[in-house]
Amino acid sequence: MSSDSSNSLQLERIVFFSDAVFAIAITLLVIEIKVPHIEDTNDGMQFLYGLLAKIPQLIGFFVSFLVIGAYWVGHHRIYGNIVEWNYGLIWRNLWLLMSIAFIPFSTAFFSDYVVHFVPLAFYAMNLAVAGLLQNHQWRYAIKHGLVNESMDEIEKKYLTWRSAMVPFACLVAILIGLISPLFAGFAFWTLPIGAIFIRRHFEKLRNASDEPLVSESET
Amino acid sequence: MSSDSSNSLQLERIVFFSDAVFAIAITLLVIEIKVPHIEDTNDGMQFLYGLLAKIPQLIGFFVSFLVIGAYWVGHHRIYGNIVEWNYGLIWRNLWLLMSIAFIPFSTAFFSDYVVHFVPLAFYAMNLAVAGLLQNHQWRYAIKHGLVNESMDEIEKKYLTWRSAMVPFACLVAILIGLISPLFAGFAFWTLPIGAIFIRRHFEKLRNASDEPLVSESET
Amino acid sequence: MSSDSSNSLQLERIVFFSDAVFAIAITLLVIEIKVPHIEDTNDGMQFLYGLLAKIPQLIGFFVSFLVIGAYWVGHHRIYGNIVEWNYGLIWRNLWLLMSIAFIPFSTAFFSDYVVHFVPLAFYAMNLAVAGLLQNHQWRYAIKHGLVNESMDEIEKKYLTWRSAMVPFACLVAILIGLISPLFAGFAFWTLPIGAIFIRRHFEKLRNASDEPLVSESET
Amino acid sequence: MSSDSSNSLQLERIVFFSDAVFAIAITLLVIEIKVPHIEDTNDGMQFLYGLLAKIPQLIGFFVSFLVIGAYWVGHHRIYGNIVEWNYGLIWRNLWLLMSIAFIPFSTAFFSDYVVHFVPLAFYAMNLAVAGLLQNHQWRYAIKHGLVNESMDEIEKKYLTWRSAMVPFACLVAILIGLISPLFAGFAFWTLPIGAIFIRRHFEKLRNASDEPLVSESET
Repeated sequence: MSSDSSNSLQLERIVFFSDAVFAIAITLLVIEIKVPHIEDTNDGMQFLYGLLAKIPQLIGFFVSFLVIGAYWVGHHRIYGNIVEWNYGLIWRNLWLLMSIAFIPFSTAFFSDYVVHFVPLAFYAMNLAVAGLLQNHQWRYAIKHGLVNESMDEIEKKYLTWRSAMVPFACLVAILIGLISPLFAGFAFWTLPIGAIFIRRHFEKLRNASDEPLVSESET
Repeated sequence: MSSDSSNSLQLERIVFFSDAVFAIAITLLVIEIKVPHIEDTNDGMQFLYGLLAKIPQLIGFFVSFLVIGAYWVGHHRIYGNIVEWNYGLIWRNLWLLMSIAFIPFSTAFFSDYVVHFVPLAFYAMNLAVAGLLQNHQWRYAIKHGLVNESMDEIEKKYLTWRSAMVPFACLVAILIGLISPLFAGFAFWTLPIGAIFIRRHFEKLRNASDEPLVSESET
Repeated sequence: MSSDSSNSLQLERIVFFSDAVFAIAITLLVIEIKVPHIEDTNDGMQFLYGLLAKIPQLIGFFVSFLVIGAYWVGHHRIYGNIVEWNYGLIWRNLWLLMSIAFIPFSTAFFSDYVVHFVPLAFYAMNLAVAGLLQNHQWRYAIKHGLVNESMDEIEKKYLTWRSAMVPFACLVAILIGLISPLFAGFAFWTLPIGAIFIRRHFEKLRNASDEPLVSESET
Repeated sequence: MSSDSSNSLQLERIVFFSDAVFAIAITLLVIEIKVPHIEDTNDGMQFLYGLLAKIPQLIGFFVSFLVIGAYWVGHHRIYGNIVEWNYGLIWRNLWLLMSIAFIPFSTAFFSDYVVHFVPLAFYAMNLAVAGLLQNHQWRYAIKHGLVNESMDEIEKKYLTWRSAMVPFACLVAILIGLISPLFAGFAFWTLPIGAIFIRRHFEKLRNASDEPLVSESET
């Protein structure tokens, strides 16, 4: 294909292009929060009410920032182990980036009609699809031998499971939303709980090994 | 001009600046999709109708994302073979980036007045011009000796032909649009068909050689 | 965790992702300045009045650009000394970037209702929180041994104090704003004054040493 | 200050941050072009009239894209010769980036009220200030020894003069605009003419030398 140094520059470019799309999507979220309109500017309380009315938008900004941030961390983690690329990987990455770039729209839709089922489900679906595409990309990379050979099997599976967690939480959110959209946010409690279970499982798998899991130092 | 390492940093900077413009244009596409206005938020069906009414915008986002993505992949492919730069290349690259940065506008125009000929032709022209400028840049790089010397002639021609395919599909789309804008999208079926023909032709050209074409692993 | 060269690429990616978010937030500030509406375009003075009416927005752009710029310089300074990373650092960095990405909104809120206490305090709080998160990240990096070992203790403390200065100025601005929002801007005079005091203090601490403080050449 | 390799990473980061701001500002230009509103979508001519009414915005996009592009090329050229950095350079660079980030606003103001003196002068001033800040940054870098030592004096002066050309053309545009804003665009003819004169002058200066000027291959 090409020399090693050229190959590594080409891989780097995929990574930096992805970083740019993640960074733009995460920063564009703020554009959807419009400045509240204040009728009587002499009344200080009006400003507080104006800000309170923006709480759905602020929550949307907050949740989407964390989710895109988490996906970026996952991307960072995945590409920290990828050492080769092919056009199949590039296109799978572009599909992931498409779902990320779409998040500012689904966030705005969700925030403008908060506690309604359709916008909630639409938003949760968007987040879930992004997670599944990330998961798919990782499994593709493993299958096609693009991953660092020194990485062991348990490690690879661990990353596969972790990247399936946010999509799982999103599906739980949709199910809760069917009953009451107001409480759908509780679905995100499955994330720390799931993380503990997955970690415990994989630590058991390798309790004979001295090397800890990569992400032990994570908060 | 300057030392080799400085030269390579300068070339890298052209690539990263281009990546940034591609990334911003591809992510800005989402800004043109406005949240649907829902009259009666108690009626769940209204949300579905609201989303259905956004289908032209969603198609615009989808098509433009894929086309900009394809042009980015083409740029990645081209610059994977470019090893020198000059100011002629920089300016040709800027003209390409101008046509890419313009796509969010032509997409919005096309999406807001879908199935009308003028917006369709305007949009297809924008995409075609971007492709032609990419093609022109590649031929400029070959002519001025900026390309990796180890690349053989068949390979160079293969890339030239491939980068002319999207503009060709756009021209077909305009021709179909003259009869019926609704069916113009079928023009994109020329892409996979054309890709097969071009590949078959170039594989015949080098059937004596053991080395496969670069992009064989592409999906 | 991974080899040294891979580790450095991973650290580089954190830095470039941060750069992209800083760059987008700093450039999005301009979007909030709308073109003034001119009634009578034959009267040249109307254009000047239109621009004068935009002075709060222009000040907001100016101040926020300088503050985000200063935080970027601080980030540049901090990461110039960070040589290792962990997931704790990544997440602390994401929280910082969230507060940076939020600045275009708080700037617009402040500019649209200038000389009112709530928008002023909201804006100053946003800037202060960003500064505190930067300061926190730096102290985290020192505590977890992510910092270049050749850096001495005085230097580390100097950076800690410097990165606490903008938050301090913001709190002063809020206090002044309680009395008169119009004069809150004077709080920023604490920055050069504080800088002189901090420098003098740390220069005294190391007057036995020949090596000057890192940022002596700063304007 | 720090080791050589760390120093070069720090310099690289300044360059990439600048690239990101340039790329965002140049791509945001398109946001100011709104989709034309078409009354009667059955009348194909209405679409053409709608596009014709957008000509001022299209010209603004075109001119600003070329000018920001030219400034980016100038920045690329300048930093191709800068090998050291200090905080004075960083802050001078931030002032330049502020003037670049402001261009989308002044472009929109100019485009919305085309052929009026105040918006024209405001726009031309913005472009001129950016050019002067670029010129200032280059002279600062020379004065403080941040420039590659192998660069000769004639080369340095050549770059100084070249980066003063766009500001000069802007001032000519303002002067012409005082008489007739419609013809102010002709000021840009001073650019190729000036380029020829400057080149001829500097080629005369070094006609004893075999090494050509850096940018001879420029179009």
